[in-house]
Amino acid sequence: MSATAFPNTPPEGRVLRRGDLHACVRDPVLDTMTFLNEITHRYPDAISFAPGRPYDGFFDIEQVFDHLRGYLGHLAGLGRTPAEVRTALYQYGPTAGQIRGIVADSLRADEGIDVPPESVVVTVGAQEAMLLVLRALVAGPEDVVLVTSPCYSGITGAARLLGATVVPVDEDEHGFSLTELETVIARERAAGRRPRALYVIPDHSNPSGNTLDRDTRDRLLAAAERHGLLIIEDSPYRRVSPGTPLPTLKSLDRSRTVVHLGSYSKTVFPGARVGFAVADQEVVDEDGRTGLLADELTRIKSMVTVNTSSLSQAVVAGALLAADGRLSTLNAEPAAYYGDAMNTTLRCLDARLPAARREALGVRWNRPAGGFFLTVRVPFRADNAALARSAEKFGVLWTPLSYFYPDGGGEHALRLSTSYLTKAEIEEGTARLADFIEAQSAADQDLAPAPADIRRG
Amino acid sequence: MSATAFPNTPPEGRVLRRGDLHACVRDPVLDTMTFLNEITHRYPDAISFAPGRPYDGFFDIEQVFDHLRGYLGHLAGLGRTPAEVRTALYQYGPTAGQIRGIVADSLRADEGIDVPPESVVVTVGAQEAMLLVLRALVAGPEDVVLVTSPCYSGITGAARLLGATVVPVDEDEHGFSLTELETVIARERAAGRRPRALYVIPDHSNPSGNTLDRDTRDRLLAAAERHGLLIIEDSPYRRVSPGTPLPTLKSLDRSRTVVHLGSYSKTVFPGARVGFAVADQEVVDEDGRTGLLADELTRIKSMVTVNTSSLSQAVVAGALLAADGRLSTLNAEPAAYYGDAMNTTLRCLDARLPAARREALGVRWNRPAGGFFLTVRVPFRADNAALARSAEKFGVLWTPLSYFYPDGGGEHALRLSTSYLTKAEIEEGTARLADFIEAQSAADQDLAPAPADIRRG
Repeated sequence: MSATAFPNTPPEGRVLRRGDLHACVRDPVLDTMTFLNEITHRYPDAISFAPGRPYDGFFDIEQVFDHLRGYLGHLAGLGRTPAEVRTALYQYGPTAGQIRGIVADSLRADEGIDVPPESVVVTVGAQEAMLLVLRALVAGPEDVVLVTSPCYSGITGAARLLGATVVPVDEDEHGFSLTELETVIARERAAGRRPRALYVIPDHSNPSGNTLDRDTRDRLLAAAERHGLLIIEDSPYRRVSPGTPLPTLKSLDRSRTVVHLGSYSKTVFPGARVGFAVADQEVVDEDGRTGLLADELTRIKSMVTVNTSSLSQAVVAGALLAADGRLSTLNAEPAAYYGDAMNTTLRCLDARLPAARREALGVRWNRPAGGFFLTVRVPFRADNAALARSAEKFGVLWTPLSYFYPDGGGEHALRLSTSYLTKAEIEEGTARLADFIEAQSAADQDLAPAPADIRRG
Repeated sequence: MSATAFPNTPPEGRVLRRGDLHACVRDPVLDTMTFLNEITHRYPDAISFAPGRPYDGFFDIEQVFDHLRGYLGHLAGLGRTPAEVRTALYQYGPTAGQIRGIVADSLRADEGIDVPPESVVVTVGAQEAMLLVLRALVAGPEDVVLVTSPCYSGITGAARLLGATVVPVDEDEHGFSLTELETVIARERAAGRRPRALYVIPDHSNPSGNTLDRDTRDRLLAAAERHGLLIIEDSPYRRVSPGTPLPTLKSLDRSRTVVHLGSYSKTVFPGARVGFAVADQEVVDEDGRTGLLADELTRIKSMVTVNTSSLSQAVVAGALLAADGRLSTLNAEPAAYYGDAMNTTLRCLDARLPAARREALGVRWNRPAGGFFLTVRVPFRADNAALARSAEKFGVLWTPLSYFYPDGGGEHALRLSTSYLTKAEIEEGTARLADFIEAQSAADQDLAPAPADIRRG
């Protein structure tokens, strides 16, 4: 008998070289996320402004059972026999999803997005939706996808997996710039490339926290139409914010320029892994037959996950039905909570680093009215080394904003997530953060050959 | 006010050319599947040997609630607090899965596969596992994946999505041939390509129904080791078959040559969409740091689905725990049922087309001892036109075997699935099929310039 605990895996077994695996496994974003996880694990008492997660406190396990029963009752109410209801839960389901009508109803009730259920594809979170849309649109090496930058790492990750080229449209401190978009489009076309789409989170973006104003929305749509560019609008933070949001790009879209992505991960629950794409663009083949882009996404989904968990779809549908299809109703209490958390964070930062002091230091932050994130500009490199010091010496964690730049940038900024903390944690965490920023700014100034006029300025 | 039902989607909106989308949406397999779905829909009274689905009859919705409670109770029994149990169900979970240990225990109990939980990645069905493994292994244009052919369309679909080249290793009527494998490897290497892995379903394969015998398993492992080829072993039909299966390739693997894929879709329930990959291969980077291939698959999964539904994982884990981790116990009754269905199909075919008659016609079939599928060779082209006639005139459906050949083949064979029908449907369906085969053989002989000696033979 072998004394090895796992006789199938002797150390002398097959060894693969990492360099022989696909390049996407070496995406630096993955390494940074690994680093962040490790440091979180190493300093369990640190207060973390890092994870972009919804707060658990509003969740009750019994809701899952109730929503599941609710959806099954709904099917029975539609006249389905018990055997049909059983099949709906048990079997392989339609690849495009079995709750498309409920999703479409909800979008009509909440978002002014009025599309037929056939244009909806239910996905394993918005992440799968990103992969499907990128795969459909990036047909050859000349096709590129534009992303507002900094941007959510999920879209760049999906692109890397597919070997698709992502081109950043850099935001400045005030956010997205249409001039920059026009410049990038012109430059890419001149280089023989074809910009297929722009990925953007118009509301309380991850990571910046910025929101496109109404005028920019209209002008972005007009520009996209003019250039034959699709817009991939991601919307995860709309219903986790207080107040009435601005209209979605999709609700303003009169030319089917927008592919709208949604997620129930921030509202109903993350573990369910249910999102969707609305893709009502017409697709015509060489024989003149037409269909919807949603049909093509469905074909691709059959090669990725076959269908989204029927159980997860049932629970999400049950939750939507229980709120008359309105996420705005369902999520009113958490949305107010997240609004308070953001306000508390801003108020505490203001108290710890008043205007004169932060101007002296060269520190600034934006003031999102909702969502999970804000960004803080600092006078030092907010890199992994700074994060490690922040964790070790000050007991506070955050995310380097540079993690979110596809082609570099953001070295002097950090992302704070306010969604996952209690008020007391935010108060203590911002105090620690202010101490860290003060100390790090001073240390960097001591090290740097700084001009006298800003030294201790 | 516009009279349009969906004001966001006017007919004058954006039109995309299908030729501008990625080639995978034009995978002919998708068109054939669409055709099969349409014809199934058009002839609702036809008896269908087409869908490779488990039988609904053993499923009870209340089991879902019980298994979910069971898993939550299990977590509580491990000392998790109510808040921790809530978080486990509610939150984003670990990308590699939260039931890895339970999956590993089950593999040890049932399959003689003894691997640490760290080598398991829980996936959205085996489909996602295929995508992850192909993505990891196909790093450049010279990398190819071998597949026994005919083969499951999920593996070729995942390859097309990634733009990866699939090279068929043709089975003959007796199944997989090591000689053919050696020939293909030599030919690919001579052409400057690098065969990275061979995809195979050793037990009751989809679509052929063939099983690798024990000697072939040992020799296949030795050949793969010799050539530095990984084997991707897919295992969906092991626990839906009567009796004790042959050892998995993974349980015989002493050199970490096998990546083992599994699915709970045929056993626990399809709608849950839970599968897994066992990837205990060591991966070493240029700095000498080592990890497991499972870690790399996890990194890729973070770009595809982030994590598998916690709800689905919980129900599958609850089912496994209720059967002491043994799918063999959990699925004993359905496995016997599927065995009976296969035997009934073979018995009825024998009665309808006795040996002398089928020899005269040139009809043959294999005799799987389990699984969902068998293949029937016929003297006519078993194409979509034949399928349409079979449905319209004879009220019986099947799948053209040609659907499952990556590079053509199988034009004179069809796949029968026996898993989804009652005994009475099998009896009636095989009678209809025999009538169809008789009529189609006669019609083809009338049309063809057939030699006199086989005419009416």
